[in-house]
Amino acid sequence: MLTTDIKAAIQRRRMIDVLLSGNIYADLVLKGGYIINVVTREIYAGDVAIQGDRILLVGQADKLIGPLTVIEDVTGQFISPGFIDSHMHFESAMLTVTEFSKLSIPTGTTTLVADPHEIGNVLGVQGMKAMIEEAKTLPNRVLFTVPCLTPDVPGLETAGADISSKDMQELLNDDYVQGIGELQGFSNVHPVYRNAPYLIDDLLASVSYAKSIGKSIEGNAPGLFGPELAAHIICGGGHVSCHETTTKEEMMEKLRYGVSVFMREGSSQRNMAECIRAITEEGMDSRRAILVSDDMVPEDLLNFGHMNDIVRRTIAVGLDPVEAIQMVTINPATHFGFDDIGLLAPGTKADIAVISDLSRMSISQVYIAGVKVAEHGELTRDIPSYIYPVSVKKSVKRKPVKLEELQISAEGAYGSVLIRTIEVVPDQNLTGAGIYKAAVKDGVVQPSVAEDLLPLLVIERHGRSGKIGKTFVRGMKLQSGAIAESVAHDTHNIIVTGTNYADMVTAVNRVIAMDGGIAMIRDGKVVGDLPLRIGGLMTDELTGKEMSSRITELHRLAREELGCTLHVPFMHLSFLSLVTSPAWKITDIGLIDVDAFTVLPTLA
Amino acid sequence: MLTTDIKAAIQRRRMIDVLLSGNIYADLVLKGGYIINVVTREIYAGDVAIQGDRILLVGQADKLIGPLTVIEDVTGQFISPGFIDSHMHFESAMLTVTEFSKLSIPTGTTTLVADPHEIGNVLGVQGMKAMIEEAKTLPNRVLFTVPCLTPDVPGLETAGADISSKDMQELLNDDYVQGIGELQGFSNVHPVYRNAPYLIDDLLASVSYAKSIGKSIEGNAPGLFGPELAAHIICGGGHVSCHETTTKEEMMEKLRYGVSVFMREGSSQRNMAECIRAITEEGMDSRRAILVSDDMVPEDLLNFGHMNDIVRRTIAVGLDPVEAIQMVTINPATHFGFDDIGLLAPGTKADIAVISDLSRMSISQVYIAGVKVAEHGELTRDIPSYIYPVSVKKSVKRKPVKLEELQISAEGAYGSVLIRTIEVVPDQNLTGAGIYKAAVKDGVVQPSVAEDLLPLLVIERHGRSGKIGKTFVRGMKLQSGAIAESVAHDTHNIIVTGTNYADMVTAVNRVIAMDGGIAMIRDGKVVGDLPLRIGGLMTDELTGKEMSSRITELHRLAREELGCTLHVPFMHLSFLSLVTSPAWKITDIGLIDVDAFTVLPTLA
Repeated sequence: MLTTDIKAAIQRRRMIDVLLSGNIYADLVLKGGYIINVVTREIYAGDVAIQGDRILLVGQADKLIGPLTVIEDVTGQFISPGFIDSHMHFESAMLTVTEFSKLSIPTGTTTLVADPHEIGNVLGVQGMKAMIEEAKTLPNRVLFTVPCLTPDVPGLETAGADISSKDMQELLNDDYVQGIGELQGFSNVHPVYRNAPYLIDDLLASVSYAKSIGKSIEGNAPGLFGPELAAHIICGGGHVSCHETTTKEEMMEKLRYGVSVFMREGSSQRNMAECIRAITEEGMDSRRAILVSDDMVPEDLLNFGHMNDIVRRTIAVGLDPVEAIQMVTINPATHFGFDDIGLLAPGTKADIAVISDLSRMSISQVYIAGVKVAEHGELTRDIPSYIYPVSVKKSVKRKPVKLEELQISAEGAYGSVLIRTIEVVPDQNLTGAGIYKAAVKDGVVQPSVAEDLLPLLVIERHGRSGKIGKTFVRGMKLQSGAIAESVAHDTHNIIVTGTNYADMVTAVNRVIAMDGGIAMIRDGKVVGDLPLRIGGLMTDELTGKEMSSRITELHRLAREELGCTLHVPFMHLSFLSLVTSPAWKITDIGLIDVDAFTVLPTLA
Repeated sequence: MLTTDIKAAIQRRRMIDVLLSGNIYADLVLKGGYIINVVTREIYAGDVAIQGDRILLVGQADKLIGPLTVIEDVTGQFISPGFIDSHMHFESAMLTVTEFSKLSIPTGTTTLVADPHEIGNVLGVQGMKAMIEEAKTLPNRVLFTVPCLTPDVPGLETAGADISSKDMQELLNDDYVQGIGELQGFSNVHPVYRNAPYLIDDLLASVSYAKSIGKSIEGNAPGLFGPELAAHIICGGGHVSCHETTTKEEMMEKLRYGVSVFMREGSSQRNMAECIRAITEEGMDSRRAILVSDDMVPEDLLNFGHMNDIVRRTIAVGLDPVEAIQMVTINPATHFGFDDIGLLAPGTKADIAVISDLSRMSISQVYIAGVKVAEHGELTRDIPSYIYPVSVKKSVKRKPVKLEELQISAEGAYGSVLIRTIEVVPDQNLTGAGIYKAAVKDGVVQPSVAEDLLPLLVIERHGRSGKIGKTFVRGMKLQSGAIAESVAHDTHNIIVTGTNYADMVTAVNRVIAMDGGIAMIRDGKVVGDLPLRIGGLMTDELTGKEMSSRITELHRLAREELGCTLHVPFMHLSFLSLVTSPAWKITDIGLIDVDAFTVLPTLA
């Protein structure tokens, strides 16, 4: 029994007094609106009466209005439960939990279920705990689903921390930890089964422990069907989600298998329009269909919104508005077992979004725990900035690199060599794999701007292996200079590419000097940079608005100064090291054949 | 961490081997059926592959069939998750959990959530624990929702045990206890609020404790709307069920308030046809609509079935069959937070009902935990009878009564008196209230067969108050003799009525001599009886079939020997002491005005 349980009992007693005594009244009544009822899938006229942080009554509330009751006139507007984002990463916005929340709350999102696996890969339990501590200071509800395995593929990449089942007791026994996050360690089902069966034992130990203490497990099952999908679900303990579903057929298969499908619809990958066809065309029950953002960049939060924008797009493709809102309220609440949010009912938490225009999903007011926190897109309560402890700001543990360390050597080769090359697939995490001829000069394989064939390296930066993995990449479309960054999924070593080795050295050393971040170099000079001191992934030095303009500026500089025509070059670069999606990827250990679970030589 | 959690981990590992290795196979495959998918609300062709007690795969299972795999051909039949009865009382069938289960399992019901508040009123924690221990021996899943208050109305009736918040720690910390059962102590919201506010504090203490350890709370909100309904829900901690909903309007209000409506459709009260109109006529989302039996008599289980019969009736009033099956599978599983039953999906428990005819809900096979337990209505596995310990069989603690104790005296009255009289309302728990003139002879108020005006007494039998409450009843339709029984809701003292005091004395003393049960007396002789030695409520001496014929025989005797034309006289008699429904009721303390929370004098 926690003190919060006791306080809840006292508060229930007081609420019963307000409802029955006839001489005590509600604190606040939202009057004259239309109720979005996500249990019955209806809209009807009604008020919402609130006492403290809880809803007293939804319906006709006149008798609960006393002389001191605050009345908010919401005539003609729609009163909805606050929205839940069931799967997101703060690291994608490179913002603190606080600065993200300041952009997200005014759009009606009152609960975030965040997966901190990026910072987990860099700083382990300590890094995730720092983020969890920040979340505890905020008015919105922020819960975490934590990784049970870092790095994703032990042996083929080096993370800052090796999280495994040994860490579960320490991580999961926190009220702000909802459960285990996306089960990436068993996404690539057959390769893991063949090559690393001991990982399955470790995942099962974590999952079974989590279930034994009542925690949930989220899956990650891209492209899985039939027995492979079943194996993934069973590894996750029986009821998992998947936020990597991209086709109607996959959506149908997963819903039929009982998976809660988190239709991803964030800043980069957007799968809702395809997935929703299982519901709109096949008439499937939508109770396990849920909308999530996964990755949001600050400019989208600012310009379009958060879950309200995702709901708007879902309505636009033809779904009933209340059914779409169910996908960000009651459906996720049921998935996670939240019984106090996700619907408007007596005794639930007064987390409310007031919608002035339903098809546009325009949010006029937001309440969290009975307090108005935003109106017309602006916060009405001050949320102070949060400064992280120094302990998470010195995560780049690497001395400056030298030219000869980065050069890709072809000792004894004459004229040219064949080199294994990762091929960028625009707007996708997966890559192609090719073998190309590259020139050799003084024993060093040379970049070729003309053929868009550039060196691609990952430099371990956690003070562990000290290794540098080397290959080539095609499709980064750089005309000059180099880009380096400490955001490199999922282990977040330093990744670098460039048109010449000298600028690549300068770029890497700039990232090291900043304690992490993004650097663009041309002719030995910094043309743009962004320090990301929290784990090399995020910053507490910028607000969301400032971050948004900095990123826009960096994209302009990449285009104008480096001649890079790729849509989002930093994001593309950062995913070239992600070894959970095919085909070839680069890590500090070397060039990885993802499906074969092996390291390939750079020279073919 | 329990050993069951560890075993589950080992089993998950083995299941992954079967799914991925290509050289280990399923134990059992149900082949060629149609899958009832309660997540997507679909029916499609598919197999179900099983390993141990779990489902491996639902879909095309050919690759999982090896030389030793048992194949069950279910071509053309429908494969459904086993059914859940979310609210029922074994005491209503007067059978042990075992004998009830033997009738229920062949009809496709694989999970029972039982409320043992009848035995709880008689024998307290010890009695309920005896029932829970029995449940642990059975193949079907039997969970309990336990009362947090006995008697229902302390001070106005005397139970064998006074359960309150003090008992919650001992009762709730058992894996077979799902949570707190129907919150009758706060059904009659305003009277309790006015007259016994201290009860609300005690209920809140129990509810808040239950929530703190992850247990659920079931409500009981007959006829409640608006603020009263909200107060009941909040007293139950925010998300409750209600199995006492009787009208479409009540159904709509409760679903809108987030209540899980348990539509009752058992042997006596049937509310589905009225409640379902909220769905069939108003198009409400049915995710929180659930079908329950509440009270089942053995003859109905034998002749018509259990949840399959309730689903059949629900289909017959026009609901989609899969939507009806959702109401006994995924909907209750979601309500209670069961994540391993209520759907057919990888990793869930292989509890399965094979349906040969969907509109008739004919059950051809039943599997529990992957084992075939019934076929064509007969058990295929032996379930041994369960004998209760003697400690729960000596619950009648009262010496034989004497004539002068039972007589209703009117000292000093001459000729006649006005007497307060409970009026039977056929087929309802609630009663009317009237004042009638009765003759007085030798200072004793006289029964009148002609006016159907008979003495009605409750004799305390728990060895506590020793009191006898006395009034008259109209509508029991006895022509001669007397009926007494130790089943008298909810405190289960001995209730007796009759056409003459002498037969009433004999009837009561017969019940005492049997250690509980039902007795019918005419002219001083036993014309029929039924010993119910377990708490005076149930027997472990009869099978379901034997009980069914005994009850039929007793009803015949009541009709032929006592001239009673009432449909189910013992049940009617037993509810005349239930002080949670209006208007007047009789307890050992006296005649109770339920709404006024007061004891009324017998003579007006």
